[in-house]
Amino acid sequence: MASEEVVDAVAGRDTALAAGLLAALESRGWTLAVAESLTGGAVCARLVDVPGASRTLRGGVVSYATDVKAALLGVPADLLASRGAVDPDVAAAMARGVRRRLRADVGLATTGVAGPDPQDGRPPGTVHVAVVTPDGVRVASPVIAGDRAAVRAGTVRAVLELALATVGEHGGGSSR
Amino acid sequence: MASEEVVDAVAGRDTALAAGLLAALESRGWTLAVAESLTGGAVCARLVDVPGASRTLRGGVVSYATDVKAALLGVPADLLASRGAVDPDVAAAMARGVRRRLRADVGLATTGVAGPDPQDGRPPGTVHVAVVTPDGVRVASPVIAGDRAAVRAGTVRAVLELALATVGEHGGGSSR
Repeated sequence: MASEEVVDAVAGRDTALAAGLLAALESRGWTLAVAESLTGGAVCARLVDVPGASRTLRGGVVSYATDVKAALLGVPADLLASRGAVDPDVAAAMARGVRRRLRADVGLATTGVAGPDPQDGRPPGTVHVAVVTPDGVRVASPVIAGDRAAVRAGTVRAVLELALATVGEHGGGSSR
Repeated sequence: MASEEVVDAVAGRDTALAAGLLAALESRGWTLAVAESLTGGAVCARLVDVPGASRTLRGGVVSYATDVKAALLGVPADLLASRGAVDPDVAAAMARGVRRRLRADVGLATTGVAGPDPQDGRPPGTVHVAVVTPDGVRVASPVIAGDRAAVRAGTVRAVLELALATVGEHGGGSSR
């Protein structure tokens, strides 16, 4: 029961973050698209949990295989070849790519190593999340402890927090 | 606690289905891509829960907005205009589109109405799921009772079951 309660509390906090993000976006008239690697669709699914998400969320791309990051999201192949998929600039390029590809105002992205094995020379828990708005790009690179599920859950949390901090800081006063 | 136990049991059954599907695909040397509408990434996320998913799963597209179904998945715009997004032929076109776009051997798709409001004239609980393999296409159209979360969870289950039945029935003996 204890672990179920933890799972339930985590899900509740994420749903609140997702609802807050969608409300902040809607108050600015901005739409959203999401590019996901290690989270595999979990960020998008959390956003869809919120009733009315369709007013803001256009959709997303799960680029689980590295070549899909280049083919669908336009991440430069030479960047992927030189640094691998787990890189802050790759996260930023994924967010830019999904924003452009889905014609959204804001793009989110996640890349990292869920484990149990290293990927592209990076240890499990290495994570990069990115948020691109019309005003610019922000990347956060937390190191997340725990097993595969914990790293993925922590990554969902990290990108939602970064996005809410970025979009919410503008406040509701802009008419833009 | 009772509802948490139900959620936990449902998640466990879905993870078993996802693991069985990935194993069946791997035994045939087939890769997978997923196109999702109402499930919003939950099918892909469930597959990524399985360790080793990266050997088989290439990724997916969440085409939550209707125009994204045409732009990213190549669903014919006239089909979407004449029948709306909640249609068995749209589900089949989404599965074909994601399979082609992500260069996978098998494509899955979900479309439907999670509710609480109708969409394109279809009531909540109307669902179509599709599976496209090199051998052809299959569509199932269950009607799923319950609230938004129940319809989405039932849709994840339905597409995983259809896919496992389709891929698994070939058995492990084929060398293709």
